[in-house]
Amino acid sequence: MSKIVMKFGGTSVATTEKIANVARRIKMEKEKGNEIVVVVSAMGKSTDELVDLANELSDAPSKREMDMLLSTGEQVTMALLAIKLSSLGIEAISLTGWQAGLQTDDVHRNAKILTFDSSKILDKLAEDKVVIVAGFQGISTQEEITTLGRGGSDTSAVAIAASIEAEVCDIYTDVDGIYTSDPRYIKNARKLEQLEYDEMLELANLGAGVLHPRAVEFAKNYKIPLRVRPSFSDEEGTILKEEVDVENNLVVRGVAFESDIVRLTIEYEVPFNGSLASIFTTLAANHIDVDIIVQSIVDGVKPAVSFSIKKDSLAEAITVLETNKKNLGFTFADFEVGLAKVSIVGSGMVSNPGVAAQMFDRLRKENIPVKMVSTSEIKVSVVVPQSDMISAATALHSEFGLEIA
Amino acid sequence: MSKIVMKFGGTSVATTEKIANVARRIKMEKEKGNEIVVVVSAMGKSTDELVDLANELSDAPSKREMDMLLSTGEQVTMALLAIKLSSLGIEAISLTGWQAGLQTDDVHRNAKILTFDSSKILDKLAEDKVVIVAGFQGISTQEEITTLGRGGSDTSAVAIAASIEAEVCDIYTDVDGIYTSDPRYIKNARKLEQLEYDEMLELANLGAGVLHPRAVEFAKNYKIPLRVRPSFSDEEGTILKEEVDVENNLVVRGVAFESDIVRLTIEYEVPFNGSLASIFTTLAANHIDVDIIVQSIVDGVKPAVSFSIKKDSLAEAITVLETNKKNLGFTFADFEVGLAKVSIVGSGMVSNPGVAAQMFDRLRKENIPVKMVSTSEIKVSVVVPQSDMISAATALHSEFGLEIA
Repeated sequence: MSKIVMKFGGTSVATTEKIANVARRIKMEKEKGNEIVVVVSAMGKSTDELVDLANELSDAPSKREMDMLLSTGEQVTMALLAIKLSSLGIEAISLTGWQAGLQTDDVHRNAKILTFDSSKILDKLAEDKVVIVAGFQGISTQEEITTLGRGGSDTSAVAIAASIEAEVCDIYTDVDGIYTSDPRYIKNARKLEQLEYDEMLELANLGAGVLHPRAVEFAKNYKIPLRVRPSFSDEEGTILKEEVDVENNLVVRGVAFESDIVRLTIEYEVPFNGSLASIFTTLAANHIDVDIIVQSIVDGVKPAVSFSIKKDSLAEAITVLETNKKNLGFTFADFEVGLAKVSIVGSGMVSNPGVAAQMFDRLRKENIPVKMVSTSEIKVSVVVPQSDMISAATALHSEFGLEIA
Repeated sequence: MSKIVMKFGGTSVATTEKIANVARRIKMEKEKGNEIVVVVSAMGKSTDELVDLANELSDAPSKREMDMLLSTGEQVTMALLAIKLSSLGIEAISLTGWQAGLQTDDVHRNAKILTFDSSKILDKLAEDKVVIVAGFQGISTQEEITTLGRGGSDTSAVAIAASIEAEVCDIYTDVDGIYTSDPRYIKNARKLEQLEYDEMLELANLGAGVLHPRAVEFAKNYKIPLRVRPSFSDEEGTILKEEVDVENNLVVRGVAFESDIVRLTIEYEVPFNGSLASIFTTLAANHIDVDIIVQSIVDGVKPAVSFSIKKDSLAEAITVLETNKKNLGFTFADFEVGLAKVSIVGSGMVSNPGVAAQMFDRLRKENIPVKMVSTSEIKVSVVVPQSDMISAATALHSEFGLEIA
């Protein structure tokens, strides 16, 4: 008998028909003899609808009241799912975040899990019940209802899995697993059977979008095997763990890409005087996410620092930089739009020093100019013209042997 | 500075526009210097929609899960109302049933209030906040979410008013007060400024439908002045209290009527042997509400008992009676459909013995046959042919001087 956490996102429970499907799938797992905790999100677009109602009433709704409002979404789903399970002969009980013992800090709309008292869940499992828990929500030490922010339901599921020492945490989604690249754009992208947490973190941060990084980090910290499975079929999906079995000896396991990148360049007339930190502190204070940073100090050339941001932060970034031009000590700022980022990810890179060189060589052969480069132990990212993004990704996907055989 | 409880039902908060109206009305009361607790129901038909979803999934949804499901309705309303109040510059905080301290027994869907710990509400009032509480819901001693059943939000409002020792509990509805009779049918029905709790109880039980009897009883027990006010205008409505100022010296204050009544008659061949209690115990055990009971034992006539029920219980009642014919000891049961009940209500009747006679006399003059009679200290009810219901009510309304002058 294994403890399993099954998490279903909003699209998987968007209608009563889909909730009935989810119930049948839970029944299957239960009848295999497993102890099951289910974590659910709000139905389909219901959260958006509640947000719309609030926006009709106020330009700046209180975060505390938004949590009160939005936390009803999962409560509806879990009650309906419990009702359906009972009608299928499976005893089930639904628990709100506060009933389930999910204690958070008091940062409304973006709360962090502090502690998790799993005793109530364990009691109900011992009564042979399927326990359904509202994802995304908890309770603060002041007995206020809180929500966890983006990716919150995934995080709830992993936290519960860690707390009850589940064998696996299954995240059911509308994709059938994690791919070597985005199959909508890259022909021959291949589903991965396994992936390491760190690789997933790099892929998630680069826009793969299937799992929230916070949930992956949580799973990594507690060593909970995390499986991304399709809710619409019985396929196995992709399992994330600490270390992956050698799969075709692949050094690179995925190619991610992201469009709408802007490169900003700041030049100094006088030798660079250490205000680099000030620039990025100022940008961070204004909630502008900076991704790649490249600094070049070459003899005979003015010192400069380049960095990339998302296109939709550009106007804000320029305003911030212009406003602080004087105290930041630079004299010229330029930017280049129409760029994209393409990254190769794989934990095998650590012990394979030639990977970056192989990447640059292939891009050179494809006549794709590289505007910026950034490397980590398990990732190499390049900034290229957006018009070359897909051809760069396709070439690299092929270069590192990721295609379907 | 007075403490006031303001309760708004589902139709008063059915849309964001209506919620905004409610917020403005609360703001007005708050700016008069009052301390305000607001009790809200779910928006419009949202409860019905949730019930429909549950019914799509199960023929017999668990009551515990229905409470989980339905309690989200008020939570949505109260958060939206708090958001709107804040945008109007009024500090507000919403509280669920469990946060507000409303402890109930564990009878899901029909829970009774056990205790009410008003300390949190009083704390928030002391912070000069408008406190918005979810009506209809509480928490059991097992930390389960419960709902109070029909009329539950009214009962929540009165319980809170009692607990914080409010000056008045205002129930805002889509009618502008309590009338001497139903103005949709009785021309010249007149709005009452005041009414006694007991009179309201008789009117409510007879189908006036504005306030739930449980809420009125609660108000009576705790002597909380209860005011029925229109949510769509500034009119004063009708106030319910222990004893009413003499208003035109009226003996009768209201005429109520109810259609779709059936009279069942049971006859005995042998002298009646005391199984009367058994009959009504059996009916009650089968959830058949019996209203008027008339027993006649006349020399030379077979002993008989007649009683009235609602038409929609008829099939069930006949089945129950036929099944238990033998052990209940009767030999013939008959019924008459197409009847209605008309009642006059007024606490002044106690000291005016001629009222019933005056009623019968007027009905005789109108050629309306009386099939059954039932009296209490403050009420006389007659069962008449349904086709005569409105003319009987109109005649009695005029007979006892209730018309608009």
